[in-house]
Amino acid sequence: MTRTEAQQGLQLASGARPGIVAGGGVLPQAVARALKALGSDPFVLILEGEAEPGTVLETCEHETRPLEDIGKLVSILKRHRVTHLVMAGEIRRRPKLSAIRPSLGLVTLLPSVIAGLGKGDDGLLRLIMRWLEASGIHVVGAHQIVPELLAMEGPWTKAWPKAADWRDIEAGRAAAEAIGALDIGQGAVAIGGRAIALEGIEGTNGLLERVRDLRGHGRLAGKRGGVLVKCLKPGQELRADLPTVGPTTIELAHAAGLSGIAVEAGRSLVIDGPELVARADALGLFALGLSAREERHGG
Amino acid sequence: MTRTEAQQGLQLASGARPGIVAGGGVLPQAVARALKALGSDPFVLILEGEAEPGTVLETCEHETRPLEDIGKLVSILKRHRVTHLVMAGEIRRRPKLSAIRPSLGLVTLLPSVIAGLGKGDDGLLRLIMRWLEASGIHVVGAHQIVPELLAMEGPWTKAWPKAADWRDIEAGRAAAEAIGALDIGQGAVAIGGRAIALEGIEGTNGLLERVRDLRGHGRLAGKRGGVLVKCLKPGQELRADLPTVGPTTIELAHAAGLSGIAVEAGRSLVIDGPELVARADALGLFALGLSAREERHGG
Repeated sequence: MTRTEAQQGLQLASGARPGIVAGGGVLPQAVARALKALGSDPFVLILEGEAEPGTVLETCEHETRPLEDIGKLVSILKRHRVTHLVMAGEIRRRPKLSAIRPSLGLVTLLPSVIAGLGKGDDGLLRLIMRWLEASGIHVVGAHQIVPELLAMEGPWTKAWPKAADWRDIEAGRAAAEAIGALDIGQGAVAIGGRAIALEGIEGTNGLLERVRDLRGHGRLAGKRGGVLVKCLKPGQELRADLPTVGPTTIELAHAAGLSGIAVEAGRSLVIDGPELVARADALGLFALGLSAREERHGG
Repeated sequence: MTRTEAQQGLQLASGARPGIVAGGGVLPQAVARALKALGSDPFVLILEGEAEPGTVLETCEHETRPLEDIGKLVSILKRHRVTHLVMAGEIRRRPKLSAIRPSLGLVTLLPSVIAGLGKGDDGLLRLIMRWLEASGIHVVGAHQIVPELLAMEGPWTKAWPKAADWRDIEAGRAAAEAIGALDIGQGAVAIGGRAIALEGIEGTNGLLERVRDLRGHGRLAGKRGGVLVKCLKPGQELRADLPTVGPTTIELAHAAGLSGIAVEAGRSLVIDGPELVARADALGLFALGLSAREERHGG
């Protein structure tokens, strides 16, 4: 594994308590399982309508709250003595501003929060993190508490990319970086040496389903293979929203007729890594970690 | 209308004969109608499976040929005494290389044609144009023969963009320029001040249909309006494949819940302009031509 700026492991001191704000997807569950395995006792704030019910999250001490309770975030976390917070998982819905009853601490930030809503995910996230840090709660990345989630460099699977796949990887990476620079999305699919579909608000799964549907398109008909590439957005907040892949990514990439997937090593999260590799091997796809191109990201 | 490098009108000398290579969509028909209205007698090479049958194109002297007859392009055009050629319309399918019987002239270009197939649309197009020019046939843009197709600067409709629409126009334009720089697509949709969907191989109509389907997405729910922006790719070949909008664009933009559309004035084509404006006015959408940002394009 390469060493990058993302990889600062964290030892929680005694008296420290980890917390998780849990959105959708399996990442929050992976973090909770890993923390419990380490003997930790995490508190989980389950976001209603985002996190799936009935998972490992509910076996931790937890509260389930709507997104609009964001104004109470600090007081909830303080009540549960959380000192280090991981924000993990997708938040698909945006909070209804009219339903937020802001706390005093949030009120002072509210004008910039509202401005942040228009700035894409990163702008909003940074503001919430600034509020938490100002309130004495450390915000840490999932990978800092569970470093084994970070993508390793090199191929993880039996299958390796061929020359044509490397051309797709390069084209997909250039496209993913370009749209990342605009804070639009993290992923791109390249087939036949050129990017043919770009991730927008629909997310990576939606992107792959679209590519599956595009296979019959005249310009793709007869073309084989192709690659999904996911990259960190330049300047992206490393403590949340790192590019993530998991077994489902492999299933959908296979359904889209792709030859494999590539992410940046040390700057991407791999959920259920052994399961991802097993599915990829069974389906004949490659999956790999690209060496980070340069140290271009802030944190 | 602004004067830009795209707007070089062309007077055909007597003895000159215009020709059209007609792909899909209504652009080739608009060019044919305009040429006939000018008293010209165009020859049309109808691309089988791309151009719709039964249109004005078949009222001109014409031949219908499969894409794989590209090797005979020069000899067909010479036989019909074509001196100035317009290449217009979409070509969705890629020719089967194995089915091409290359002419002597094309053989010398074939290695670069094959390389061009991997370079995106522009690379391939430039090679074919180079071959035609080397054979003594002038390749001209649709707008050079029918300048009234060029988008005018300013609003064309009763509705004008509001402040929020201008933020969407700026965000959409930045995104369209970024993906254009990678030769991926020309269009982007921005809603709520940020680009949320980018055009790939599916084309503008596919992009708008996707946005319609994304309206229920959590991050968009409750957000209104939004704008489609189409831009010339930097360095794009001006004689073919200029960004194009028409009445269908308005219908689909409306179905996607957008407030309007914007294209670059003088660098985009408007098909059936009066009909486009009538539909937009009936539906309450705006449509406008943006002033070209800089003279950044080659020809």
